[in-house]
Amino acid sequence: MNRSSHLDETQLLKHISLDCVVFGFHDSQLKVLLLRMKRTKDWALPGGFVLLDESIEIAASRVLRERTGLDHIFLKQFKVFSSPDRSNTNPGVQDLLDSGAIDDSSWFNQRFISVGFYALVDFSKAEPTPDLFSDLCHWKSLEDIDLLILDHNQILDKALETLRLQLNYQPIGYNLLPDRFTMPELQKLYETILGKELDRRNFQRKMLSYDILCKLEERKTGGAHKAPFLYEFNLENYGKALKHGFNGGW
Amino acid sequence: MNRSSHLDETQLLKHISLDCVVFGFHDSQLKVLLLRMKRTKDWALPGGFVLLDESIEIAASRVLRERTGLDHIFLKQFKVFSSPDRSNTNPGVQDLLDSGAIDDSSWFNQRFISVGFYALVDFSKAEPTPDLFSDLCHWKSLEDIDLLILDHNQILDKALETLRLQLNYQPIGYNLLPDRFTMPELQKLYETILGKELDRRNFQRKMLSYDILCKLEERKTGGAHKAPFLYEFNLENYGKALKHGFNGGW
Repeated sequence: MNRSSHLDETQLLKHISLDCVVFGFHDSQLKVLLLRMKRTKDWALPGGFVLLDESIEIAASRVLRERTGLDHIFLKQFKVFSSPDRSNTNPGVQDLLDSGAIDDSSWFNQRFISVGFYALVDFSKAEPTPDLFSDLCHWKSLEDIDLLILDHNQILDKALETLRLQLNYQPIGYNLLPDRFTMPELQKLYETILGKELDRRNFQRKMLSYDILCKLEERKTGGAHKAPFLYEFNLENYGKALKHGFNGGW
Repeated sequence: MNRSSHLDETQLLKHISLDCVVFGFHDSQLKVLLLRMKRTKDWALPGGFVLLDESIEIAASRVLRERTGLDHIFLKQFKVFSSPDRSNTNPGVQDLLDSGAIDDSSWFNQRFISVGFYALVDFSKAEPTPDLFSDLCHWKSLEDIDLLILDHNQILDKALETLRLQLNYQPIGYNLLPDRFTMPELQKLYETILGKELDRRNFQRKMLSYDILCKLEERKTGGAHKAPFLYEFNLENYGKALKHGFNGGW
């Protein structure tokens, strides 16, 4: 990608960018944070560049803070995107070239490899904020996402594939759900990420077998006659499962 | 890292390198392929740079082909190493500076971020070959590996951590064992990677439950009275488990 709030290219590492697939969960839908480019109105993943004194992780945290207002986001590198022709059709760069802001020999107009991160954020706490190259920063539901700039569809697909594989061996949900949630809410999150319906009993049995949930005395208030029980994550076991996987190791 | 067989820096992407942790299994030991630097005799991971028309994956395959003579190696990106001070003490660059081959402003003397790959290879088929900066390419047992250059110990540790986590949710062994192997040989591989002994019965029970093995009629020949049965991997199920994890998905 080729956008940043730091346009002083002398302060940036050449050839390297990062792109973030930011997932949130709202209204039973998996949402992804996108930017709308100012001129072309094309959509793009939030991203940025690396300052000379930054690691790529620090750069990604900075970019996400700028786009969401949030710190300490669950953020994970998942792949480097480095096809030699990925930058050739960069509409962001084309904008800049057309506007005369940069010329052909520009720093921005060279080959970039991009480090892909995915982030899981609490939808209700994020404050989407556009960057210098965009006029809108917006949550889009997965099924409403059409063509993105560059190889950003590929980056999104790979992030989703990584997240789905992670569901099979590591817990998820702590960063996406409120502190207290019901089993149906947790199941809905899994169904949304996987894009398919799950059997209620099997889900509950499997999930409880991982020993990462605490059932609370309380039930969810409001509405239904048979209100479901509330759960919260057992953070010690959750952390262990994140580290070693659900099978608990050998 | 700062070594390559392509010294024409105009053909290389600035600031980006790759390092490979190449694992092999031999004599019941987990081995890692290392290079000995010509002048300092320091040890380093095999690595290289990215040609202007290469993706990082192609570059890594090329580097591994040059170091091992092997194609189609199991190769996986696992992390980008990008601490801003990781290159400052690069003894390879120091060698080049001392020798007058490059000066302070050299391409090689700038900040690099390195993409870490790990590879699983058939020890018996690899032909270790040094690069331009090294005089020896050599398998070392994990427990014999001392201080490596730069952040290469950190890269090795992270690769091993990734491999150990992978053992908990994905199959391993197809690339490290001969086509036919015994259950004790497979267990030994796991024990070696994990660095601990495992219970024989539990290992066998768990491994068989994953449904990735075919038990053959034959027993291993030679020696023992009660020769163990031979197994081979069921590659269809092995491939599925690689893709979805052992839990088989939701």
